[in-house]
Amino acid sequence: MKIKQDTREPELQLLADLNEMSIEFVREFMKVGDYEFNNVIVERKEIDDFCNSILDKRIENQVKNMKQSGKVCFIIIVGNMKDRKVDIHENCLLGKMVSLIIKHNIKILWCEDEFQFLYLLKNVYEKTNEMSKV
Amino acid sequence: MKIKQDTREPELQLLADLNEMSIEFVREFMKVGDYEFNNVIVERKEIDDFCNSILDKRIENQVKNMKQSGKVCFIIIVGNMKDRKVDIHENCLLGKMVSLIIKHNIKILWCEDEFQFLYLLKNVYEKTNEMSKV
Repeated sequence: MKIKQDTREPELQLLADLNEMSIEFVREFMKVGDYEFNNVIVERKEIDDFCNSILDKRIENQVKNMKQSGKVCFIIIVGNMKDRKVDIHENCLLGKMVSLIIKHNIKILWCEDEFQFLYLLKNVYEKTNEMSKV
Repeated sequence: MKIKQDTREPELQLLADLNEMSIEFVREFMKVGDYEFNNVIVERKEIDDFCNSILDKRIENQVKNMKQSGKVCFIIIVGNMKDRKVDIHENCLLGKMVSLIIKHNIKILWCEDEFQFLYLLKNVYEKTNEMSKV
């Protein structure tokens, strides 16, 4: 299972190997998204990064670029909302999630830590792979 | 803003009124889903109910019925994964979320309590309403 990973993302190869997840990360500079495989592009957002990217509107451009790629777009949020350190009202987060899903057709997944993130990545890989063979 | 609510759902009218959310719940028995408005059907799942419905496979039927309705289908999960009391591995929850999104095209939203749930419901109402006018 080869997954393209942006060079600015944290090293996850060791964590994947120790858990025998059969993922091989191929690190290269990516203009759009953080991970790519099959027909899928994934943006990983730790909860505070998600908050900050709403506040400074960075997320608007990221979403625009992801959509322009023509691929199936995922945002995977890592961390629980209530653990955020950034000063942003919960309604902004909830409202942005709804926009992303309804207006932009982005698929959003939540998880609590890097290990769960890897599991989601592997699972999305396997299921999109199956679907493409149907 | 009129929202159809299944009679087996908890009373949320007072909470909505106290927060001046301008939602009017119309309670009636619903065969499919828990809430309905515009072209949307929503199933509300507290985290432990979500876990149990995976274990006893109830969710399969619920999803099948929702999809057959031809409406845009949402599952809103209330509560954080790590607070679950049901004995189910996190991978089952994560894997099921991926299936629901990829294989069944269900839109999944997470929130932490009933108040956030109401906010999401109102937000989904407003945004699907806007979209239908475009």
